[in-house]
Amino acid sequence: MMHSRRDFLQYSALIGASAITAPLAGFAGISQQKKLGVALVGLGGYATRQLAPALQQTQHIELRGIVTGTPSKIPQWVEKYRIPEKNIYNYETFDRIADNKDIDVVYIVLPNSMHAEYTIRAAKAGKHVICEKPMAVNVREGQAMIDACKKAGRQLAIGYRLHYDPFHLEMMRLSREKTFGEVKLVEASDGFRAGDPNQWRLKRALSGGGPLMDVGIYAIQGARYTVGMEPAWVSAQEFPKTDPQKFRDVEESLSWQLHFPNGAIANSFSTYITNVNRLYAAAEKGWFEINNAFGYAGQQGRTSAGPMTFTHINQQAAHMDGVAKAILENRPNNVPGEEGLRDMKVIEAIYASIAAGGKQVKIS
Amino acid sequence: MMHSRRDFLQYSALIGASAITAPLAGFAGISQQKKLGVALVGLGGYATRQLAPALQQTQHIELRGIVTGTPSKIPQWVEKYRIPEKNIYNYETFDRIADNKDIDVVYIVLPNSMHAEYTIRAAKAGKHVICEKPMAVNVREGQAMIDACKKAGRQLAIGYRLHYDPFHLEMMRLSREKTFGEVKLVEASDGFRAGDPNQWRLKRALSGGGPLMDVGIYAIQGARYTVGMEPAWVSAQEFPKTDPQKFRDVEESLSWQLHFPNGAIANSFSTYITNVNRLYAAAEKGWFEINNAFGYAGQQGRTSAGPMTFTHINQQAAHMDGVAKAILENRPNNVPGEEGLRDMKVIEAIYASIAAGGKQVKIS
Repeated sequence: MMHSRRDFLQYSALIGASAITAPLAGFAGISQQKKLGVALVGLGGYATRQLAPALQQTQHIELRGIVTGTPSKIPQWVEKYRIPEKNIYNYETFDRIADNKDIDVVYIVLPNSMHAEYTIRAAKAGKHVICEKPMAVNVREGQAMIDACKKAGRQLAIGYRLHYDPFHLEMMRLSREKTFGEVKLVEASDGFRAGDPNQWRLKRALSGGGPLMDVGIYAIQGARYTVGMEPAWVSAQEFPKTDPQKFRDVEESLSWQLHFPNGAIANSFSTYITNVNRLYAAAEKGWFEINNAFGYAGQQGRTSAGPMTFTHINQQAAHMDGVAKAILENRPNNVPGEEGLRDMKVIEAIYASIAAGGKQVKIS
Repeated sequence: MMHSRRDFLQYSALIGASAITAPLAGFAGISQQKKLGVALVGLGGYATRQLAPALQQTQHIELRGIVTGTPSKIPQWVEKYRIPEKNIYNYETFDRIADNKDIDVVYIVLPNSMHAEYTIRAAKAGKHVICEKPMAVNVREGQAMIDACKKAGRQLAIGYRLHYDPFHLEMMRLSREKTFGEVKLVEASDGFRAGDPNQWRLKRALSGGGPLMDVGIYAIQGARYTVGMEPAWVSAQEFPKTDPQKFRDVEESLSWQLHFPNGAIANSFSTYITNVNRLYAAAEKGWFEINNAFGYAGQQGRTSAGPMTFTHINQQAAHMDGVAKAILENRPNNVPGEEGLRDMKVIEAIYASIAAGGKQVKIS
């Protein structure tokens, strides 16, 4: 869908830029004049419809460059976001971004299997990196990305926008402060109906896996931060495919169970055949949950003591501003590579359990 | 908790006898004068706090007898429900109920392991039988109960009160009529914190198993009637015990996944360590769910198109009236032994999968 600049401004007004301005206005100490410049690497749907619009609402970071392998996409980005010619790269010229002082941060929005390569190339070019989830297609790649950024003295952040969403922050708080006692059980499910049979998500060489890699990772995240510790063991099950042709390359549906050291449990499900989207916690004295938990908007929060009421924010803007602020203040960001790596370890253990017929597998 | 007769009448007014009167008033053809007489076998909490009060609201069945091994319980039942001396039995005298014309139906509310024996003895005494869930502790016993009732020419009904609850009937209808398209996924969980370490539920010799037998069976039921077909395969997982002493005899928490022949899936969880209680269906074009799905009251229903709004009824009264009406009209009841046996087959397959380390097990 094409948007004119006027359409975009109307959209921006509609979703309420003020919602994100409000909490960030409280941050003192960074003068408005210093903003980081970001280049988006990969101009697919998420970059186009979510990140670029969100970057019109950020205070500490702004869109200054693009990296794309599709020249026909360039004119609309130039027109809409006034990207200067010198800040436009393709995948052959990408490494020259090292010499571009406009660009402080590179945001990798490529298919999963390209995350490691472009994160490492960006780090070598001296840029901070934000990389979409999953950070990589396996633990080995994820570790290499962390190492490369560390070696370059640059930050690595994963695209975990929900760590900046007020409903999810509330789940973390209710768990941490034991408002309803200790969390005993998390139910977390994330799935959607994958329509287009030709999308990269369904090609293992690009995605590294199916719904687990794509959206199940949010259920893993949700369980981890709602229990508030790292799981020790996992068992997992893959379901028979109802469309073996469409899903010939990746799993169609799967479930898994996380065992936490304190005895807490998470039961989860992820699929490409139906919408499901919920994060629920049962604690000793009550429960709390988000429905439409993992979407970009529309979270509905409830607790056994009443509704969770928060103003919805632009998650992507909050996430990118949060990371940018950490970089500007030279302190670690909230969603570092190490956080992404923990999910990769769980994902690898889930696939290992499925391969072993559902046996419990220790998470390394 | 003791109730005086006046307390009871106030309670009865409070929960609204009219709610159940309304739908049943529509049934024509049975004159009010003919009511079946029921004897409750086992005077534990469920008989005392749920069934006996509910029997003050029924139109087609009334409380006329009790069977108990605890003589000290008798006076309060005699006083509150005017049970005549001749309709009071203990477990030694129980078989003489064959000669008692007042008693048409025997409702077995004993610990699970006693269901088969007392159902078969009741059938041999020529009585129709309502038996609490789970119908038995294994398939073999369940089949013997069905056979005994068939041989005696008497009905067997299982205590599946939710087949008469308007919220659950709505789940069945939304699935059957494909209001939101075909159901693809059910999430169903039922658990509670088992307090008293000495209760019969925790003794395998009496219960036959843990939360799966006790409340997980509702999640199995819910999945089966919300998908609208019988599952073909199951995989299941038992979680490590956080209180191995208290749960030395039965499982503490477990999860399982049902595979239906049309590709639909159910992911479920049951536990004795925390409250959880939900039945959710994701269909092609929307979702529908009940929270506090399996409790005696307080169901909250929602769909992707808006709330489910029904008047809450007395489930136990509706269930017993429904079964009594079927008996009076000489047609099969809605919750026959065969329905109970299907759940027993799933339960056996779940335990078999756990014993086999989580492997998929065919449901016989």
